[in-house]
Amino acid sequence: MIKLVVDLMGADNKPKDLIKGAIDAINDIDDLYLYVCGPEDELLNEIKDLNYDNKRIEIVNCNEAITNYDKPVKAFKTKPNSSLIKGLTLAKENDEIKGFVSCGSTGAILVSSTFILGRIGKVRPALSPILGGLHPFCLVDCGANSDVRVDELYDFAKMGKAYMEAYGKENPKIALLSNGSEEGKGNDLVKECYKLLKEDSNLNFIGNVEGKNLLTLDVDVVVCDGFSGNIALKTIEGTAGVIAKFLLDYAKNNNMMKELGPVLYELKNTYDYNTKGGAVMLGVNKLVMKGHGAGVSETIYALVKQAYQLAKNNLIEKIKENLKND
Amino acid sequence: MIKLVVDLMGADNKPKDLIKGAIDAINDIDDLYLYVCGPEDELLNEIKDLNYDNKRIEIVNCNEAITNYDKPVKAFKTKPNSSLIKGLTLAKENDEIKGFVSCGSTGAILVSSTFILGRIGKVRPALSPILGGLHPFCLVDCGANSDVRVDELYDFAKMGKAYMEAYGKENPKIALLSNGSEEGKGNDLVKECYKLLKEDSNLNFIGNVEGKNLLTLDVDVVVCDGFSGNIALKTIEGTAGVIAKFLLDYAKNNNMMKELGPVLYELKNTYDYNTKGGAVMLGVNKLVMKGHGAGVSETIYALVKQAYQLAKNNLIEKIKENLKND
Repeated sequence: MIKLVVDLMGADNKPKDLIKGAIDAINDIDDLYLYVCGPEDELLNEIKDLNYDNKRIEIVNCNEAITNYDKPVKAFKTKPNSSLIKGLTLAKENDEIKGFVSCGSTGAILVSSTFILGRIGKVRPALSPILGGLHPFCLVDCGANSDVRVDELYDFAKMGKAYMEAYGKENPKIALLSNGSEEGKGNDLVKECYKLLKEDSNLNFIGNVEGKNLLTLDVDVVVCDGFSGNIALKTIEGTAGVIAKFLLDYAKNNNMMKELGPVLYELKNTYDYNTKGGAVMLGVNKLVMKGHGAGVSETIYALVKQAYQLAKNNLIEKIKENLKND
Repeated sequence: MIKLVVDLMGADNKPKDLIKGAIDAINDIDDLYLYVCGPEDELLNEIKDLNYDNKRIEIVNCNEAITNYDKPVKAFKTKPNSSLIKGLTLAKENDEIKGFVSCGSTGAILVSSTFILGRIGKVRPALSPILGGLHPFCLVDCGANSDVRVDELYDFAKMGKAYMEAYGKENPKIALLSNGSEEGKGNDLVKECYKLLKEDSNLNFIGNVEGKNLLTLDVDVVVCDGFSGNIALKTIEGTAGVIAKFLLDYAKNNNMMKELGPVLYELKNTYDYNTKGGAVMLGVNKLVMKGHGAGVSETIYALVKQAYQLAKNNLIEKIKENLKND
């Protein structure tokens, strides 16, 4: 049995609008057990008419949320009864629990999971989403660490490798995000890290990737500092959003919703990483996954499924193993 | 009379396929004089049947090009007869010449223009394209400097201000590219620069901009180190390219070229910055503009028009003035 904690609070949507995703996951996966953090009465009322195996779901009553308006460190210290802190503490204290998922505040999840679950060795935990549509890859780091040292960036590559291995990818291809694909391109950090990655025979390092090829290159792990990674990630999101809006406006203004509707839907389906699951906090002692703040019940379902798979494939053990080669 | 040098070599397309853009500019602007660098016979043959005022265009015969395959510093030293070096030298030696445009190798233009024309004071020259479709803004730096100090980043803001002023923008709004819009977000460099920009009453600093809002925010100047700027720029290009290809494939596979053709064309027209002109090398002693390597004659036309306007509006003097406030 894989046991996971699901935090339903702190996101844009209400816990009662998200719990259906947890129920669907329970119905879909036989050896899954969920601890769901949220307001008990409200949640029970929402699911009372649904069919599910109630011996594999347990509601952890929480009535307080940490939101994006809370300062992460302060919230961690002052909101011990919040769903985030209660959920992470439960995961910490129960060895059988393999992971934690939430659509709450990224900053609060980063801070609280690091404090409560602890780091693997001295690694800097990094946030890593799966991107790419046709060639999925993980981006490590997408925003947890704005300034990193070269050894920390090197660790991101190793953790990214473990992450993609836990997805079943053999010998994942690793690239460095840079301002040009040729060797020698990059800022000082990238140029130094390039040498380390190139010399490491455990890593399948294929060189630099630039922004232009990020979504098309055949690569499994893209390594970068959290500042650059965040810019790349959000620029993809922003550009896709602007184009989608342009197309939608065009379709409306030209009475072409019938013709353009399907392509817009397929476009969103292929490239919207928000519907694809969450970002994993690589480097803490348990699997922690963060979904999009605007997530809906389908998001919760996708998150839980993804976390289940990663837990089953021993992500944390794989990360520990990869980092041991230091 | 505004005199400019146009380098037609070193790009993907042949000089003879580009010269039409220079002729169109001459025909369009009465007080424009062009020195066109390229193979004389070939160019004269190409334009022999065209109508234009041949007293305002002069061909500088060049038979050697610097390409993307040349190492910029080596090329500068070993190819004195290339169109790039001859054109820049001409611009340097003739006080009447106000600027230089080329679609050649970015690295070679950066290096050669800095060596030949010299820097304004001690500023680090930065490459700045105009982006944004509906809300055009300049991005400074998009790739000339991978590692910058905070005072250099501060200078980029001042040069960007001068640049947008030369486009007629009053009191341009300036933002820092960061991993979040709130004050306090950013890497150490951005956080430090934030303070300097906020305290400078000469600058209309509006705070941070993140990748997600880059194409939609009402801002005139986006300031960043050349590494992050390059990632943002190329990620926009890559994302738009992937979506455009997706739409094109969809249209072809579903026999919908008739329905989707016009929207694809309008999309490209609105967001493809390659057709909109070039990137300016801010910080060298004369106006230097770099167009897209795949540029066609329309690109040359747009570049020349843009350079003409900037020269007419005293870009270089404005930059010197803004930097004086140090």
